[in-house]
Amino acid sequence: MHTDYVAALDIGGTKIAGALVDGTGGVLVRAQRPTPAKESGERIMGAVEEVFGELMADPLWVGASAVGIGSAGPVDATAGTVSPVNVPGWRGFPLVERVRAVTGGLPVTLVGDGVAIAAAEHWQGAARGHDNALCMVVSTGVGGGLVLGGALHPGPTGNAGHIGHISVDLDGDLCPCGSRGCVERIASGPNIARWAMGAGWQPGPDGDATAAAVAASAAAGHPIATAAFERAAQALAAGIAATATLVEVDLVVIGGGVSKAGEVLFGPLRRSLRDYATLSFVQGLKVAPAMTGTDGGLVGAAAATGLGARGLGARDGDAAVVGG
Amino acid sequence: MHTDYVAALDIGGTKIAGALVDGTGGVLVRAQRPTPAKESGERIMGAVEEVFGELMADPLWVGASAVGIGSAGPVDATAGTVSPVNVPGWRGFPLVERVRAVTGGLPVTLVGDGVAIAAAEHWQGAARGHDNALCMVVSTGVGGGLVLGGALHPGPTGNAGHIGHISVDLDGDLCPCGSRGCVERIASGPNIARWAMGAGWQPGPDGDATAAAVAASAAAGHPIATAAFERAAQALAAGIAATATLVEVDLVVIGGGVSKAGEVLFGPLRRSLRDYATLSFVQGLKVAPAMTGTDGGLVGAAAATGLGARGLGARDGDAAVVGG
Repeated sequence: MHTDYVAALDIGGTKIAGALVDGTGGVLVRAQRPTPAKESGERIMGAVEEVFGELMADPLWVGASAVGIGSAGPVDATAGTVSPVNVPGWRGFPLVERVRAVTGGLPVTLVGDGVAIAAAEHWQGAARGHDNALCMVVSTGVGGGLVLGGALHPGPTGNAGHIGHISVDLDGDLCPCGSRGCVERIASGPNIARWAMGAGWQPGPDGDATAAAVAASAAAGHPIATAAFERAAQALAAGIAATATLVEVDLVVIGGGVSKAGEVLFGPLRRSLRDYATLSFVQGLKVAPAMTGTDGGLVGAAAATGLGARGLGARDGDAAVVGG
Repeated sequence: MHTDYVAALDIGGTKIAGALVDGTGGVLVRAQRPTPAKESGERIMGAVEEVFGELMADPLWVGASAVGIGSAGPVDATAGTVSPVNVPGWRGFPLVERVRAVTGGLPVTLVGDGVAIAAAEHWQGAARGHDNALCMVVSTGVGGGLVLGGALHPGPTGNAGHIGHISVDLDGDLCPCGSRGCVERIASGPNIARWAMGAGWQPGPDGDATAAAVAASAAAGHPIATAAFERAAQALAAGIAATATLVEVDLVVIGGGVSKAGEVLFGPLRRSLRDYATLSFVQGLKVAPAMTGTDGGLVGAAAATGLGARGLGARDGDAAVVGG
């Protein structure tokens, strides 16, 4: 019996990471390239091919039985295409077909990056053992994915859980997505910093005007910085409560750069959830920080193929292989 | 081979309806009592027992293999209890256990009334053949239920799809549920009428100040009445777009009294959806009026037991019965 691996691909606006992931979630044989985000679709695909070239040159590749891709969205799992907002060279790019060709015909599963993080947190992280959970990334953007009834819920196109672009302020500021008052438009790192500066917060002598600097000010008791995180927490709470009320999740897991603010974010978030998650069946909603780190995207892309559900080191076809 | 029936119970704030439902969705042997909503829990249960008494006196009762209950919420399918907002005598009332006892031990499925409507529309109505749909009732309140991946999604407690109480206006008016800016707080019939009168709309000589009267004014071109429906449509669109963005539904079915306004509601709703359902994977979202009528609650309660999925007239145990 040989070990089963999944080739995982994590596609973001700045880097394309690949690895083999084993049945315990171990990440082996890494490869990475910067995303040539401003270049042509074929140049970007060239970077993907280089990543696979490194992985396929490894002796462990022989155990690779499937490919899982988590990509910046939107994706279209039905068509097998990706159109990452920050990678203009890829619009409806047939990534699944191209990766299948590169890997000699391995089955390919495609999901959005938020869905991949949810898969990782459900398999290995804070959502482990939870049948109904929302997993979020609060960073430059706000993304998410859902676990419903014990299984990942990618939705038909692989984009479900896109909480960053639900409106919690129907008359609010226009969002780059075209809607108004989206959760991301209020609660992402850049929007937290923008709100703070608009209300009079000033960066320190180092000139750092990021949400991390606002968080440091808030931790030191600065009232405007504190208010900036309270406003973000309010928008997150409204979106999280909406999700729980719609699909019944009892846990929300939050990762990403802004979540590093810790209690500066989680404290007001838990308080705001009491204001918005009011119906009896959502009052017990818990909040937890994410446990998977930078490898979450790779582990989750692998998990989205069903690797975690297949168990530790077992392979779907093993019985047949042994019996044949 | 005898025919399989499900005993369906539809519990609302004004009436308790019961029937036998066959495998084609046919509604037979009806019974009904007013809900003694202001009385004790036992008096209300007495009305339920009278409904079952009538059903059980019918010769067809011998074919009843299960009970499906759709109840005004919140419900708790895990605990088997109901706590309908407008029936104060029932708070955590153990309806499932009591109905099981009354019916001699039949298996009982409990869901919220919005979930029941979704089950009915998926089985027999406008959502037939759709694997991912939101079904709504816009009336005195706003409720809903979800079909995901081809199956009803009641959620662990039977309350999923509760779109009336998601906030689309996080700084908005306080809702009786305790939250702010809920879809129901803006788009329910009474709130449409309230908004119209607040903006200067006046009822006609008959004094009718309901949403139906506002709809009639809007259909006749009254600008304030038109604006009242546009505002409701905007809130509904924000909530529907949020739902589609979170779980990927491609159809929303809308019934209930306010939906009788027809294009006065559906026209601005379709326009507003273009403003809020902006991401590529939700732009194709369609809106359709509900097809099931007043029997929807009964048919849906029956469908929630899996009756529709079991097929036309067939019975789970039929093969065994024939073979035994």
